[in-house]
Amino acid sequence: MNCAIIGATGYTGIELIKILTRHSFVRLTHLTTRQKRAIPVRELIPTISREVNLEVRRHSFSEVKRKTDVIFVCLPHTEAMLAVKQYREAGKIVIDLSADYRLKNAAQYQKWYKTRHLFPSLLKSAVYGLTEINRSSIRKADLIANPGCYPTGAALGLAPLLERGLVDLKSIVVDAKSGGTGAGKKLSVHTQFSELDENFYAYKVNRHQHMPEIVQTLEKIAGKKVGLTFVPHLLPVQRGILTVIYAKKTNKATPAAIRKAFLERYSGEPFIRLKAEETFPALRDVQNTNYCDIGFTVEPKSGRVIVITAIDNLLKGASGQAVQNMNVRCGFSEEEGIPA
Amino acid sequence: MNCAIIGATGYTGIELIKILTRHSFVRLTHLTTRQKRAIPVRELIPTISREVNLEVRRHSFSEVKRKTDVIFVCLPHTEAMLAVKQYREAGKIVIDLSADYRLKNAAQYQKWYKTRHLFPSLLKSAVYGLTEINRSSIRKADLIANPGCYPTGAALGLAPLLERGLVDLKSIVVDAKSGGTGAGKKLSVHTQFSELDENFYAYKVNRHQHMPEIVQTLEKIAGKKVGLTFVPHLLPVQRGILTVIYAKKTNKATPAAIRKAFLERYSGEPFIRLKAEETFPALRDVQNTNYCDIGFTVEPKSGRVIVITAIDNLLKGASGQAVQNMNVRCGFSEEEGIPA
Amino acid sequence: MNCAIIGATGYTGIELIKILTRHSFVRLTHLTTRQKRAIPVRELIPTISREVNLEVRRHSFSEVKRKTDVIFVCLPHTEAMLAVKQYREAGKIVIDLSADYRLKNAAQYQKWYKTRHLFPSLLKSAVYGLTEINRSSIRKADLIANPGCYPTGAALGLAPLLERGLVDLKSIVVDAKSGGTGAGKKLSVHTQFSELDENFYAYKVNRHQHMPEIVQTLEKIAGKKVGLTFVPHLLPVQRGILTVIYAKKTNKATPAAIRKAFLERYSGEPFIRLKAEETFPALRDVQNTNYCDIGFTVEPKSGRVIVITAIDNLLKGASGQAVQNMNVRCGFSEEEGIPA
Amino acid sequence: MNCAIIGATGYTGIELIKILTRHSFVRLTHLTTRQKRAIPVRELIPTISREVNLEVRRHSFSEVKRKTDVIFVCLPHTEAMLAVKQYREAGKIVIDLSADYRLKNAAQYQKWYKTRHLFPSLLKSAVYGLTEINRSSIRKADLIANPGCYPTGAALGLAPLLERGLVDLKSIVVDAKSGGTGAGKKLSVHTQFSELDENFYAYKVNRHQHMPEIVQTLEKIAGKKVGLTFVPHLLPVQRGILTVIYAKKTNKATPAAIRKAFLERYSGEPFIRLKAEETFPALRDVQNTNYCDIGFTVEPKSGRVIVITAIDNLLKGASGQAVQNMNVRCGFSEEEGIPA
Repeated sequence: MNCAIIGATGYTGIELIKILTRHSFVRLTHLTTRQKRAIPVRELIPTISREVNLEVRRHSFSEVKRKTDVIFVCLPHTEAMLAVKQYREAGKIVIDLSADYRLKNAAQYQKWYKTRHLFPSLLKSAVYGLTEINRSSIRKADLIANPGCYPTGAALGLAPLLERGLVDLKSIVVDAKSGGTGAGKKLSVHTQFSELDENFYAYKVNRHQHMPEIVQTLEKIAGKKVGLTFVPHLLPVQRGILTVIYAKKTNKATPAAIRKAFLERYSGEPFIRLKAEETFPALRDVQNTNYCDIGFTVEPKSGRVIVITAIDNLLKGASGQAVQNMNVRCGFSEEEGIPA
Repeated sequence: MNCAIIGATGYTGIELIKILTRHSFVRLTHLTTRQKRAIPVRELIPTISREVNLEVRRHSFSEVKRKTDVIFVCLPHTEAMLAVKQYREAGKIVIDLSADYRLKNAAQYQKWYKTRHLFPSLLKSAVYGLTEINRSSIRKADLIANPGCYPTGAALGLAPLLERGLVDLKSIVVDAKSGGTGAGKKLSVHTQFSELDENFYAYKVNRHQHMPEIVQTLEKIAGKKVGLTFVPHLLPVQRGILTVIYAKKTNKATPAAIRKAFLERYSGEPFIRLKAEETFPALRDVQNTNYCDIGFTVEPKSGRVIVITAIDNLLKGASGQAVQNMNVRCGFSEEEGIPA
Repeated sequence: MNCAIIGATGYTGIELIKILTRHSFVRLTHLTTRQKRAIPVRELIPTISREVNLEVRRHSFSEVKRKTDVIFVCLPHTEAMLAVKQYREAGKIVIDLSADYRLKNAAQYQKWYKTRHLFPSLLKSAVYGLTEINRSSIRKADLIANPGCYPTGAALGLAPLLERGLVDLKSIVVDAKSGGTGAGKKLSVHTQFSELDENFYAYKVNRHQHMPEIVQTLEKIAGKKVGLTFVPHLLPVQRGILTVIYAKKTNKATPAAIRKAFLERYSGEPFIRLKAEETFPALRDVQNTNYCDIGFTVEPKSGRVIVITAIDNLLKGASGQAVQNMNVRCGFSEEEGIPA
Repeated sequence: MNCAIIGATGYTGIELIKILTRHSFVRLTHLTTRQKRAIPVRELIPTISREVNLEVRRHSFSEVKRKTDVIFVCLPHTEAMLAVKQYREAGKIVIDLSADYRLKNAAQYQKWYKTRHLFPSLLKSAVYGLTEINRSSIRKADLIANPGCYPTGAALGLAPLLERGLVDLKSIVVDAKSGGTGAGKKLSVHTQFSELDENFYAYKVNRHQHMPEIVQTLEKIAGKKVGLTFVPHLLPVQRGILTVIYAKKTNKATPAAIRKAFLERYSGEPFIRLKAEETFPALRDVQNTNYCDIGFTVEPKSGRVIVITAIDNLLKGASGQAVQNMNVRCGFSEEEGIPA
């Protein structure tokens, strides 16, 4: 199968190249950039096998269109919008790693991304690519809106509880901590070494653009309105998101019922690993993998459930899940090519 | 005034040496260790001014007793218990940086520290040294139980709200993240560089020994029972604790009332700094200082108050506050000797 | 082919497990430890594929002997000595990652490792496993002494120059900087996070136990006595060694001759990558790979050659090279199973 | 005494503010920036004492000129050139932290900084502010060219040996490793967290613009031509330079003579600390201090002297030494205001 990566020089593009060059059924035909100079992949990713002879280049839309079956769009949000539209019109399967086709409500998109959505009808047709939740729709989707990193960590931790009504929907607090690559490759004073090293802080407290995406996802799962408090933080590490979720349990939510919900819901999932009772994941456990590790406990006194999830923000939180979605869509083994 | 530091080679002992050698009214007469070899302070703290000629040594109790006015006890918990008792019997002012005299209830102490408290009546006489809360009692205290690092960050963030009944006492969640020095200097696999670097995780979820200390402190301030969920984490940085506090506001708690509570409560406090509206502290802002920086916001939809505090775990969370307490007790300027 | 790893819980054992579980022609039959409790590999290496169902266990020598073809010995030096002897007597191919069979001279071994060598004749039969230098001997070797990490980085940078007499053998300075895993997994105050983070220093200046190994290797290549100054440093990173080599060039050593020496010597080598003129490798380029990247320059004024090599200390500097050697010995493709 | 800092928002400006606000005899009258918005120092340096009420602002030359005695110029090189000239013409004592007045030879300046020097006669009058070497000239200097960080670490390690002819002047190799703040505050891909963290590499190998400054300084001390190989590296730490110096000893250079040279040369120096025999400094020992720590050894076999120096690049390597120079120039105690 012929794949292209549009915007291949950022962190998510790089991870896609690493995965897809190992994928048994994929040929990478085009890696694109807006930079003028062609960049050998070996220069972009010095650790890659020297057998990889690809280049990232300015490719015209018509070139890419001619030869490709699946398009991964790794452009910044608002810039992805048009590219997705064009490749869809050309009949390609598109997996969009930007935020542009995630929010179902165009008004919400405009509110949080400060840009009017130009293709609201295409938005409607997009399938939200949280694999474990939407697998059957992904199988038939031609436009997959690949989830954000924070929403992935939050939704996978809450889904089994929401589906069975085990937590009070107004009581949800998500306290998430992300490594520095989450901020992307763009130069910024906040991600300068001398600013982030030895430092730690919360940012965009209750104002992060992933909030509406989390709410939309949780509400779809729960089938009801959800209240959310969301505080993201920046960690002085490169990769990984640790998400700590607090919620009041409902009356029927015994510890046994909660454990059963997780076990049954995620049994057979290739990339979800449940921790043993009263143990919790560390970033180290999932870095450079597509796993989402989940630990949880019920605190009897306060009646609060605590769920902790760990993912690699660039893999399960971006490019790993994107390929997982492609595998589902194209009928390959779901794990094909994806780092353990 | 003559001061001694009992157990001067750990992180809190080292910070005390750094502060007290700059203190205008203190002479450090004894720095003790259980190690046989005398250790020059210049070897223990290579960055210290070369004018400091002190040594950490095995000193007998009777030696220390003879010449000293104030004793800082920096022994591990359970080991501090007896030393404190002896120096109190010798009539000294004792500032105990261990946990041994913090919990008023000896049964609670035994439950959380797995050791029977031998001197419950002395326990009763101890004053909990959270300066901003107990300043007037500290002025007359002969035994000051210096607070733990997590309790300091949590209680200073909540005190103004609890005193005015602005938050629901059953709704409090404390999500705290500490640098590696919080775990002390003892060798441990968890604090090996290759374990902690690039890593991040929650530990002792709802089981940390600082829980009862936080609850006791909050309940004393509120005058009522408090429910608490407490999740501490270990950060790959050396110093600092960022504490994020979530609580439901009560009906009367308007944003204006909340701001007023913080402003009035901490006006004139030399070591508390309030952030401007909707801004929050970073570890960087308080490292190597005795400041506690506090930011907060009210989230209208969920009715939740979010308070974020930042302290240096070794200063405001330990040795800085210990000297602040000594200054209060001895009638010196509260800021004397303490890093900005 | 059936392989065992003796001492599988340290850093080199862990890397071997990661590589050998991906190796097409290897079955890992035994992973041993002296600890009593069996440790699932998934607990030891949380990031490993959940399809790996192995355990590290106490295995008896006779059990291991019965089923195994190749033995990787990952014991600490001095402890490996006897294990190697026993497995060799049992007729196994042994690849020893310790230092015990590297130094040809038993007296030198005793001097630097403070232990008498008990099997000097076995020492004689060992082949030093620097693949690029000794490939033809490795093909027939039954005992392969796998090189140390510093010697690998130094010798690969110097070999082309020594073989053609392009540098003054008395002028060699090796200034090497290693990540923290180089010190092994044993608890140590020097590798505590709070000691190594934000720190950097030289250690064992001209006294490191890898000195005689470097000298022996360089002298064998040059066929003459070599003078060496060697200063290792500890870096606050996890993996990688950057080795900067300074030497005076000989008269015939034109820049062209030097470039030619590197190009011809390493042409066709699967794991050596030469940098373009006047460019030099970074640790980032080789971490988690088996590559040795090499850059060099000639400084006309001083007549000095500067060579900089970068390796991952746990892969090309240990377990990667060990499997490379096994592949050579057993006739597999040299790159089989080895990352990048 | 009234002081101004021209360009106060970079790393060296910030360190100067921290020192000069603690200096007993200094009043900071002007802190300048080219940015339009005035920046409170408390915002620029969140850890500073809340008693500091200064602001960094656009100040006109005439304002600064009117009230100030000493001017610290912290502008980027090439931009400092004119400012220094103007303040000198206004009769001020100028301490220039840029490179613009360090190289005595205007042609060399043009070669390395790609800019013609406009004021070669002013260049002649500048005194190179390496305090321990030029103290008597600094006492009378009106324009002090404050040394670069690498030259400070290299020259202090070599001066005693050069003065007594103890090393071969053609044999000097300087292998220096600097923390990330050495690259300044300007945004750069090389100092992004995700680039520098866990990484390490050499840069500008034998082409760093500090080379001619090191050579000029060593030649002035030695009174003869000096050959130099200089390889700087970037460390994933914030502060500090570790400089390892290799040189062949001359015949008369016994270990005793070398030790004597260091002891006698630096006896009484307030900011130089010699390590005990065969021990060497770590970055940790000098970070946040103005100390230069020096260790050295003679290697009998190769006849090579190894000297290792450690400084904080922002203090002894920049702002600390600048204030040390001001103290010398103005007749204050040399240590006044300077950390440790």
